[in-house]
Amino acid sequence: MKTRFGIGLGLAAGVGFASMGAITICNSARADEGMWLFTKPPTKMLKEKYGFEPDKAWLEHVQKSAVRFNDGGSGSFVSSEGLVMTNHHVGSGDLEKHSTPEKNLLKTGFYAKTRDEEIKCDDLELNVLWEVQDVTDLVKGAVGKDMSTADANTARRKKMLGLEKECEDASKKSPDGPAAYDCQVVTLYKGGKYHQYKYKRFTDVRIVMAPEQDAAFFGGDTDNFEYPRFDLDMCFFHVYEDGKPYKPEHYLKWSPNGAEDNELTFVAGHPGGTERLNTVDHLKFMRDVEAPLNMRRLWRREVQLETFMARNKEWERIAGPDFFGVQNGRKARTGILAGLQDPKLMQTKMDAEKKLRAAVDANPDNKGQWGGAWDDIKKAFDNYKTFYARTRSIGISGDLFNIARDLVRLADELPKPSPERLREYADSNLDSLYLGMYSSKPIYDDLEIDRIASSLANMTELLGGDDPYVQKALGGLSPKARAEQLVKGTKLKDVETRKAIAKGGTQAIAESKDPMIMLAKDLDSESRALRKRFEDEIEGAQRDAYSKIAAAKFAVEGEDAYPDATFTLRLAFGPIKGYKENGKDVPPFSNFEGMYSRANERKGQKGFDLPQRVWDRKDKLDLKTPLNFVSTADIIGGNSGSPVVNKKGEVVGLIFDGNIQSLILDLAYTEEQARAVAVDSRGIIEAMKKIYDAGPLADEILKK
Amino acid sequence: MKTRFGIGLGLAAGVGFASMGAITICNSARADEGMWLFTKPPTKMLKEKYGFEPDKAWLEHVQKSAVRFNDGGSGSFVSSEGLVMTNHHVGSGDLEKHSTPEKNLLKTGFYAKTRDEEIKCDDLELNVLWEVQDVTDLVKGAVGKDMSTADANTARRKKMLGLEKECEDASKKSPDGPAAYDCQVVTLYKGGKYHQYKYKRFTDVRIVMAPEQDAAFFGGDTDNFEYPRFDLDMCFFHVYEDGKPYKPEHYLKWSPNGAEDNELTFVAGHPGGTERLNTVDHLKFMRDVEAPLNMRRLWRREVQLETFMARNKEWERIAGPDFFGVQNGRKARTGILAGLQDPKLMQTKMDAEKKLRAAVDANPDNKGQWGGAWDDIKKAFDNYKTFYARTRSIGISGDLFNIARDLVRLADELPKPSPERLREYADSNLDSLYLGMYSSKPIYDDLEIDRIASSLANMTELLGGDDPYVQKALGGLSPKARAEQLVKGTKLKDVETRKAIAKGGTQAIAESKDPMIMLAKDLDSESRALRKRFEDEIEGAQRDAYSKIAAAKFAVEGEDAYPDATFTLRLAFGPIKGYKENGKDVPPFSNFEGMYSRANERKGQKGFDLPQRVWDRKDKLDLKTPLNFVSTADIIGGNSGSPVVNKKGEVVGLIFDGNIQSLILDLAYTEEQARAVAVDSRGIIEAMKKIYDAGPLADEILKK
Repeated sequence: MKTRFGIGLGLAAGVGFASMGAITICNSARADEGMWLFTKPPTKMLKEKYGFEPDKAWLEHVQKSAVRFNDGGSGSFVSSEGLVMTNHHVGSGDLEKHSTPEKNLLKTGFYAKTRDEEIKCDDLELNVLWEVQDVTDLVKGAVGKDMSTADANTARRKKMLGLEKECEDASKKSPDGPAAYDCQVVTLYKGGKYHQYKYKRFTDVRIVMAPEQDAAFFGGDTDNFEYPRFDLDMCFFHVYEDGKPYKPEHYLKWSPNGAEDNELTFVAGHPGGTERLNTVDHLKFMRDVEAPLNMRRLWRREVQLETFMARNKEWERIAGPDFFGVQNGRKARTGILAGLQDPKLMQTKMDAEKKLRAAVDANPDNKGQWGGAWDDIKKAFDNYKTFYARTRSIGISGDLFNIARDLVRLADELPKPSPERLREYADSNLDSLYLGMYSSKPIYDDLEIDRIASSLANMTELLGGDDPYVQKALGGLSPKARAEQLVKGTKLKDVETRKAIAKGGTQAIAESKDPMIMLAKDLDSESRALRKRFEDEIEGAQRDAYSKIAAAKFAVEGEDAYPDATFTLRLAFGPIKGYKENGKDVPPFSNFEGMYSRANERKGQKGFDLPQRVWDRKDKLDLKTPLNFVSTADIIGGNSGSPVVNKKGEVVGLIFDGNIQSLILDLAYTEEQARAVAVDSRGIIEAMKKIYDAGPLADEILKK
Repeated sequence: MKTRFGIGLGLAAGVGFASMGAITICNSARADEGMWLFTKPPTKMLKEKYGFEPDKAWLEHVQKSAVRFNDGGSGSFVSSEGLVMTNHHVGSGDLEKHSTPEKNLLKTGFYAKTRDEEIKCDDLELNVLWEVQDVTDLVKGAVGKDMSTADANTARRKKMLGLEKECEDASKKSPDGPAAYDCQVVTLYKGGKYHQYKYKRFTDVRIVMAPEQDAAFFGGDTDNFEYPRFDLDMCFFHVYEDGKPYKPEHYLKWSPNGAEDNELTFVAGHPGGTERLNTVDHLKFMRDVEAPLNMRRLWRREVQLETFMARNKEWERIAGPDFFGVQNGRKARTGILAGLQDPKLMQTKMDAEKKLRAAVDANPDNKGQWGGAWDDIKKAFDNYKTFYARTRSIGISGDLFNIARDLVRLADELPKPSPERLREYADSNLDSLYLGMYSSKPIYDDLEIDRIASSLANMTELLGGDDPYVQKALGGLSPKARAEQLVKGTKLKDVETRKAIAKGGTQAIAESKDPMIMLAKDLDSESRALRKRFEDEIEGAQRDAYSKIAAAKFAVEGEDAYPDATFTLRLAFGPIKGYKENGKDVPPFSNFEGMYSRANERKGQKGFDLPQRVWDRKDKLDLKTPLNFVSTADIIGGNSGSPVVNKKGEVVGLIFDGNIQSLILDLAYTEEQARAVAVDSRGIIEAMKKIYDAGPLADEILKK
């Protein structure tokens, strides 16, 4: 469920096997619907339905205990010593970076018995949401009266970057020092509102404990997005500040007895992105243009990576994280595309839109102000259709090319004033950028060649071999031969070389004979032009039009609505609850006994090979201990690693997945069968103590 | 290497891992190039290079010993008792059809100790090429002087069907009885020549022996198209005529000592299709339009089938043949696309075309007659581009829909005179059609649902959800729900129902409420319209233009050329010969010792799990016995199962694959690294006697 934003949104082909059944879209206040802003929680609904009203202190405590993993994922502080809990599949990239053929942490798991044994993650950044400010008027006010859509979008973007810079500068201890806070202006309701989010940044993060991947991801791709599940999908880090253990002001206590069936629970996490407010034309663009192209990319890469990994054990290890990301994305998007391709779901959306538009058109003022917004969206996507495939295919994959492109662009952008730059090179984003660019994480030639060859071939497939951009990218060689030439020729694997080129700026770039830098230079003008076209013609038009639609919705339906997910902190809620599937009851809890049964039942099949240690400790475990559970909370990719808490704000579980029926939550909420899937807090402690000999860690968590 | 023609031609994304190196296109007479017609063998070349000249008797003997498997694949008679040898992967469809969850022949292998134990394959037809007649003048003569391209194409097609009917009618014992021969007019040189091929038909074919799939396809997808290999990819059938064992006039004797390194060998088989005569614009269409779309289909289906098969053991069994076909096709087409995307290969083609066109243009007569042909091809493909995706996406997959469509079309077509019908419903093709339509092979609901849901989703992805054809196909349901409705509602699983509807003709179809029949009726007009458009505008234009290009080539380069492969009998040749890869020598022969080493080396990895029986018999085997070998013979998909014979016409091997460097043979021949891969005749006998306790079968083969 970790959302990889590098992949971008985009969906998939309708062959899930669990019966999706009839979709009942619940818009009534009865449903446990919503990914709510902490600044606008569903207090009324909670009080009416559950007799519980979270107060300000409760909300602040949970908010400041929640953590965002900057590369996609959620987590939370769970001890006074700065311990952060998340999923194994959120931490697996870091585990992989610190593995070698001889010491494969994904295979063996890891536990640092002392602080000295912990593994520092150089390029991992955690954020905690500290303050929120509504800056809607400021951002919208930056747009002049008769500005074109493109100019309006530029004006908004500059204003947003200016606000971010101001906020970050104010948090600096010295003018040249790093900002203590990361500030981001977030677009909500697709342009209806703008909020400034101020995050506390943590960049010294160290791995404490992780089980084996075979236990964390037990059931593999086969059971991914399924239920019942039996996964120990957990990973723990310690956070440091100024080299010393960080003592958080807010952290979540552990529930002594977990939670019960039907108990109300909350999820505080960072859902990546939903498309619930989309107009019908926007959904059709997703269904007919975006999703097919993105599914193609995922199928393609899944097959290619599987072939790559079959070559030998070492390649299997180094490509593992890419492969998991692709398979996971493919399965999630398959479910969403199944929803988009369902004529009934589309009809529901059409009916709702018709109703809203009729209400708008009934009032001449409203009609004049907002009535054209839906057609504007249609026009924007009719336009986007003509260059979407191009925007999606001109990139080149791989760490080395990314570094080269960042170096080339930094040289171009840094001389400009911050608000004039491409967003990711604005002052407010530089700290995070350098963290990634100067990371010493290993880069594997064979995998890089495979990634680059694949993206060069992809480009040729989509744009045609006669395209001048493709010819420039290939440089007269076949995709494979070109990839080899680039990877074997570049010096960018060396971090010091990167730093030297960055320091040398424009001149260093102009003089560089590094083939990867030269390629990035060659391709940059086209890539920038396409990006500008998207921002001016599509993003701008969407902001304008959705801002109108949001206003219309507030006017017609009231302001009691939550915005689409944007990988920012949200509160979801719902009781622990089983469901019916193919006429059978699916119980809410699973336990260790079930895990061993499933392992025996599927013996020898891919993904079901429990680690030896888990078999060895079977007799020590209380097999009836709950291991995973489901609730009706409204979550989506990006929520991976979110804590599940009870009314007291105590941890009862750890979100790691949604069932297959939950995949259409991207488009619409339903609580009939869609469920959030979590590791039970009791299962976590039982495994720590009895399988992983990590009693001291359990004690740290349980300490009052 | 079995070509599945249902899949159609179309290629893939350049990430093979074996180094393709520089491609040297050998057009000189020195290369072992060519898939030669038996009516025009390369006698001069053979004599000059190898001092061997096959005489008429040699050619007739080999030709009439060679067998074509009608569903794609090659074979040969190898005993006086009518024993036919082919590959396991050619016979695997038949093995699967006669398997059950309890008795899985793919898993266990099979050997009929007596004739009584053999398994009859109801819908398997074998053909032996008996006579060839050049009908070029007759077919071309059918075209009137000022006919449009479309009319000319129709006239040619009618003439071809008329010639076939005449030929078959002449072979009937009684006017209503079945034809003893299957007659087919074959288009050669893409329209340069037309030959009438008269095949002897065999429809009573019974499985005699097959090893376990794990031995036949040892190394799985990982080693497919690689070398060295260690595969027992063999399968044996007995042919019957009038219920009695068939005693063939011609069958291949077995070489007592196999063949040696550097020995000249021949391959007689049915290469499926090559694209060597294509113009550059035609190749670009393949590179930029056809291949990307077809690769997309293969990646998509590979991922979907892998997911399907992971659900349980039974689903793994029933989807196995589909999966093998898709994976095999994907790997082959990946290699071909890598060739198309190589700017150097394309440059070679451009240079050759430029030279030929200059020679044509140098003579005003020739220029007037042929000079416009290349631009005509370009125009045709520019046109085809606009509806190619539609033609490739409107079909619905699965056995049940195919049966329904055949029933619907039969009712429409049978009342017409044979030459007016769609080609597959012409009298000359009815016997084969009924054989498939009334086959009692098992149809699995779950797999059918998966296939249909997948093709409905595919259609929606490619044509868009608002397309009227898509909406008709979905009938208001999601792809998955619609597939379930169709499969659960149809009665076509019952063979008697099919026969009754066929008998009822137009009226039965009009009145049918069977959902599959109704769907086939709904979709047929669009599907026919697209086909007609293809035939009139693309196929017709190609025939015209390529006929001119062929004439130009004959005039400029001489008539000493072989036509592109067309799944008809061809003779290839070349010595057994190793090659160099990444600077290392790859030896020409592998042996049983190597098989056991590789199994140990890759223990536990997918595809490398040798059957227990093969392990158990290790001590009995002479481990130095050659198991597989490579030669420079010019082969391609469809050659699977072809016999490899020595100068005496004796069997020394059994073609089952090409190495990864051979995949570009689709486009151009190269003998630097491209190799045909065969099972050694000595390995076959050793395995029969010492692993499979099939001594009597070995004796039948070895009998003088």
